[in-house]
Amino acid sequence: MTFAEKLNTAWRKNDSMVCVGLDPDLKKLPAVLKDEKYPIFAFNKALIDATCHAVCAYKPQAAFYAGQQAEDQLMMTMEYLRETCPEIPVILDVKRGDIGSTASMYAKEAFDCYGADAATVNPYMGTDTLKPFYDRTDKGVVILCRTSNPSGCELQNLICDGKPVFIHVAELARDQWNVNGNAALVVGATCPEELARVRAVCPDMPLLVPGVGAQGGDVEAVVKNGCTADGYGLIINSSRGIIYASAEADFAEAARKATETLRDTINQYRGC
Amino acid sequence: MTFAEKLNTAWRKNDSMVCVGLDPDLKKLPAVLKDEKYPIFAFNKALIDATCHAVCAYKPQAAFYAGQQAEDQLMMTMEYLRETCPEIPVILDVKRGDIGSTASMYAKEAFDCYGADAATVNPYMGTDTLKPFYDRTDKGVVILCRTSNPSGCELQNLICDGKPVFIHVAELARDQWNVNGNAALVVGATCPEELARVRAVCPDMPLLVPGVGAQGGDVEAVVKNGCTADGYGLIINSSRGIIYASAEADFAEAARKATETLRDTINQYRGC
Repeated sequence: MTFAEKLNTAWRKNDSMVCVGLDPDLKKLPAVLKDEKYPIFAFNKALIDATCHAVCAYKPQAAFYAGQQAEDQLMMTMEYLRETCPEIPVILDVKRGDIGSTASMYAKEAFDCYGADAATVNPYMGTDTLKPFYDRTDKGVVILCRTSNPSGCELQNLICDGKPVFIHVAELARDQWNVNGNAALVVGATCPEELARVRAVCPDMPLLVPGVGAQGGDVEAVVKNGCTADGYGLIINSSRGIIYASAEADFAEAARKATETLRDTINQYRGC
Repeated sequence: MTFAEKLNTAWRKNDSMVCVGLDPDLKKLPAVLKDEKYPIFAFNKALIDATCHAVCAYKPQAAFYAGQQAEDQLMMTMEYLRETCPEIPVILDVKRGDIGSTASMYAKEAFDCYGADAATVNPYMGTDTLKPFYDRTDKGVVILCRTSNPSGCELQNLICDGKPVFIHVAELARDQWNVNGNAALVVGATCPEELARVRAVCPDMPLLVPGVGAQGGDVEAVVKNGCTADGYGLIINSSRGIIYASAEADFAEAARKATETLRDTINQYRGC
């Protein structure tokens, strides 16, 4: 199945638009995992087992593995996801942004080395950066558009030709970067009125929405402003709010409850 | 020594503004290295030995190592550079762009895991992305401004408040991201008049200039438009033009000649 097919299937089968961010920080892992040979993998495995019935996607953040020299545990996590829940798409959050042969290397890293279904990409360098990703028609490219962090506005909200840079990105995604129907956009939950503007430009494109939970985004506003006409279209990511729902031995059970609660809150505002 | 001190020293001691891009592609390595246990490291080691007298920096492109599962050989290369030519700054070309704890992880990866003197960073997400890098006062942050690739203009040249996005980036770098005096900007050789505009905004900031050689940038225009008042200020990168100057057993000698020729061409236009 392609990324788009997996996503459409998971939305419906699990009746969920929740994405769990697998961003394990060794300093925050539950004490019960401290003696594991592969504590990050053990943490992820327990989280996946507890949540895979209630998510539409997983999003491992590559920096947490690279910065802790745990690339092997990212690989083990990706393999476990493919074995255990092959129908759930995995978005590798790498935010790559380079060109030509280098961009091709990054696409190879995400899709072939790690076997991800989609990867996040930074559009600052333009089409040259995106093409090696969207040319992989079986995979997805998730393009930064309007990010949820406080300084996201510094460049993204500069007004050019009467509209902000992030709307130019959405238009480029619609007109040039979605020729294979496999583009998606990142739009933060912390700016719901901007989410509505992006949705107006791209009525059917999947939107990956970080920033609910720890970053304070409002789920109701996200759902009301971001859903497609058929009531789907969102990949609402929560990392810390789910994976650190408890720091004790019951962390996986707490993650399950947090995932189901977020799923139900989203669905309530969807009118399901 | 800090990144800035190393760079200032290397410019003067080696009388060179050449940066060698260590972007090894296994498919292009000289046949003579095919039986090496670590062919990429062997290639880099020979290139470093042949060129370290005539460069101001090295720039390994991380994608080539990640995409070929050769992170260990990047680590070996970084260690070899520290042992052999500790006075030459090493810019790890990662083009990272993320925020908060994730950006801190990437800074840790570049500076602590790999021991780089500087790292390239993408500014699309703003100050949150840059701060974990420029807060490391001993290290350097090299910020994408106007890139050399054909589609670089799509977002970077949008006009906001009468000036292009890339000039907004240069102004943010001057006013906010250089508080510790360790910021530099990437400006492509393929747009020399834009290089002059960035230099006018940031009269003393080091500029990393890719795009001479294989990408067709004009060395004379780069030097005349990009030097600081004291005749330095540029880190002119060449990768393919140097590392693949010969595909035969004499590749290191050919790389030495190509480096010295580029150094001399640059110095001729500097008026040295």
